[in-house]
Amino acid sequence: MKFYEDCEGITEPQGFFATGVPCNIMGKNNGKLDLGLIYSPRPCSAAGTFTTNDVKASPVRYCINRLKDSKQIFHGVVANSGNANACTGVQGDEDCSKMASETARHLKVHSKEILVCSTGRIGVQLPMSRITAGIADACQDAIEELDGGKAFQEAILTSDTRTKSCSAQIQTSSGKVTIGGTVKGAGMIQPDMATMLAFLTTDAMASSSFLKECLLDAVDQSFNRMTIDGDMSTNDSVLFLANGFSNVDIQHESSDVVSEFRKAVIRVCSCLARKCVTDGEKVTKFVEIQLQGAKNDDDADKVARCIANSLLVKSSWYGSDPNWGRIVDAAGYAKVGLDFDKFDLSYNDVPAVRQGQPLQANQAKWKEIVSQKSFVIKINLNAGKGSVVLWSNDLSEEYVNYNKSE
Amino acid sequence: MKFYEDCEGITEPQGFFATGVPCNIMGKNNGKLDLGLIYSPRPCSAAGTFTTNDVKASPVRYCINRLKDSKQIFHGVVANSGNANACTGVQGDEDCSKMASETARHLKVHSKEILVCSTGRIGVQLPMSRITAGIADACQDAIEELDGGKAFQEAILTSDTRTKSCSAQIQTSSGKVTIGGTVKGAGMIQPDMATMLAFLTTDAMASSSFLKECLLDAVDQSFNRMTIDGDMSTNDSVLFLANGFSNVDIQHESSDVVSEFRKAVIRVCSCLARKCVTDGEKVTKFVEIQLQGAKNDDDADKVARCIANSLLVKSSWYGSDPNWGRIVDAAGYAKVGLDFDKFDLSYNDVPAVRQGQPLQANQAKWKEIVSQKSFVIKINLNAGKGSVVLWSNDLSEEYVNYNKSE
Repeated sequence: MKFYEDCEGITEPQGFFATGVPCNIMGKNNGKLDLGLIYSPRPCSAAGTFTTNDVKASPVRYCINRLKDSKQIFHGVVANSGNANACTGVQGDEDCSKMASETARHLKVHSKEILVCSTGRIGVQLPMSRITAGIADACQDAIEELDGGKAFQEAILTSDTRTKSCSAQIQTSSGKVTIGGTVKGAGMIQPDMATMLAFLTTDAMASSSFLKECLLDAVDQSFNRMTIDGDMSTNDSVLFLANGFSNVDIQHESSDVVSEFRKAVIRVCSCLARKCVTDGEKVTKFVEIQLQGAKNDDDADKVARCIANSLLVKSSWYGSDPNWGRIVDAAGYAKVGLDFDKFDLSYNDVPAVRQGQPLQANQAKWKEIVSQKSFVIKINLNAGKGSVVLWSNDLSEEYVNYNKSE
Repeated sequence: MKFYEDCEGITEPQGFFATGVPCNIMGKNNGKLDLGLIYSPRPCSAAGTFTTNDVKASPVRYCINRLKDSKQIFHGVVANSGNANACTGVQGDEDCSKMASETARHLKVHSKEILVCSTGRIGVQLPMSRITAGIADACQDAIEELDGGKAFQEAILTSDTRTKSCSAQIQTSSGKVTIGGTVKGAGMIQPDMATMLAFLTTDAMASSSFLKECLLDAVDQSFNRMTIDGDMSTNDSVLFLANGFSNVDIQHESSDVVSEFRKAVIRVCSCLARKCVTDGEKVTKFVEIQLQGAKNDDDADKVARCIANSLLVKSSWYGSDPNWGRIVDAAGYAKVGLDFDKFDLSYNDVPAVRQGQPLQANQAKWKEIVSQKSFVIKINLNAGKGSVVLWSNDLSEEYVNYNKSE
């Protein structure tokens, strides 16, 4: 497998075009690219996964409905930043449909064949006249087959400090297949904009149900492994489009190739998820929690999330303080029946607690590890075979300052 | 009912003595009172409620064991701040027992008759020689029947900015009965010291099972209504002692008097809990969430806790930003089946969202309310009869700064 970071992302696979245009959605007149379009002249199969928040934004409900029909084909995705189109009622639903129909009209496809994503402020109606003007511009770019993967990456950002993309290429018996992806960050970000949007494309030929299978598996091992501030957005969406441009029918390849394709999707998602966790200008550390020895995987997940979401734990990481007491405390309130006398904890490969006993001799080493920009906390509950890996980060004063008002 | 705040607290009821002495537990030689003693020459019945964290500090396990025997009598409580005696293994258990036995030896009672509480750093052994010296001093004060309620209040503080106490007095057919209490803060506090300890005393005569009933009911309506940073300590404890000094056998009073007594316990606990939430120098706002219209009380609690623990919501309160979008988002990820089209939200008595529609005309009023030091957020899910009240506060930059290292 060949793997690339910081590339064109979603336009790396053949037959996908993209762009990003400024249409002044927030009314700040700052020229920010805030409307993006992915376009494939060849029809695509597609799959998606979405926020499980009870309150779902209009475009999330729109995409869920569109993707219900597994035979439905798609030609693209229109996405905007600056406004989430969430909690916007009937007007919001109409505006979302209009984003699809306007895009479809310019691209001369059916409006059902366009997916829609939004990210930004909650509870504010979209400025539709500016958005329809932006859609016209974006479609013009797309019709001219612009390879604007980077512009699309920029258009979906809110307070992310950088674009995020990667691609993977695998060899099959019938030729090469490429998977590309991009994402905008989650949490630690601008007020009201705690949304993750991710887009994946591939030039493989695949059914929507196969795509969905690959996607759910990959999301479970990547985006669902991140926990930043514990807030889950109304708009989180991951979309995966396959246009078959490579003429490789991936499902009819050997099981080794199919497995390689699945791995490539996982690798793309993992790379994007890690970029999400490390981006956000208010984050100073990337922390991987490797937890094993729980009674089962669910228990492992509960314990790791209590640790990763504890304000006291996150604050101590920010201060480079290897505060294992707070970690034990957080692990304990997951209430999975933790026995501290069996508890092991290491920072990277340096043991800090063994069978509930602190190893004070190593203290200088832990302190050094926790002062690094990235480290791993390994925990063994020694109670079973359940395990999990979670990616998290610290909580900085700047986070609070950044999020205290609009 | 007569009610007093900022009084002697636990020594307001007759026959209770208390003190606080400095014994340099943290080794800082700053003269802080860090060991407290409550003493009743008359034997007391007692009840307690404790952290449900899987990891319980030695003194918590000690008290739970002591209180198992409902016939056991008690003469007092020894409590220290600066060290939690948590995650300290067999040595921690021995030290905890020694705190009880040393206190008992000086007071000439049985060591089983002394309860023990600790709060402070996790994972560090107690400095026992300094503690036993402190216990000797404290017992001397107690034997001299010192009315040192205030000194005790001080001795249990960690980073709390002030002592917290109150008392209630009710009239019965056989005379007056007093209930006194004190508490040290939870969360938003010094590194490793996120512990709440509360102590209640009464000169009523009551069985331990009756005390426990009153206490659980009151704790459910007070301490369990607070949520500050979502972290639950290894040491949280609430103890209630009754010495019968008033000669009022409360359980044989009329049902009206019994009910008045229960209400007095609730009022003492509520007052102490509110003081906990508003104290902590890094807190700038007290926010009461009144949530109703959930399918049941459990759902109401889930939704209110998601709101109260959301970093984005708490940050916006700090910034005086009436950000109802973030509140709706947090309510949605409680996943109780929230229907936003039925969602009502008010700041104090000013409606902000009605049936999912924002009432923009009131925006200036909400902003004014959220800039106050204390306000109420009223939410109606309009889906049933479940309701809850939660007390919370904001998240300040100073919180992170304060907790980033030891």
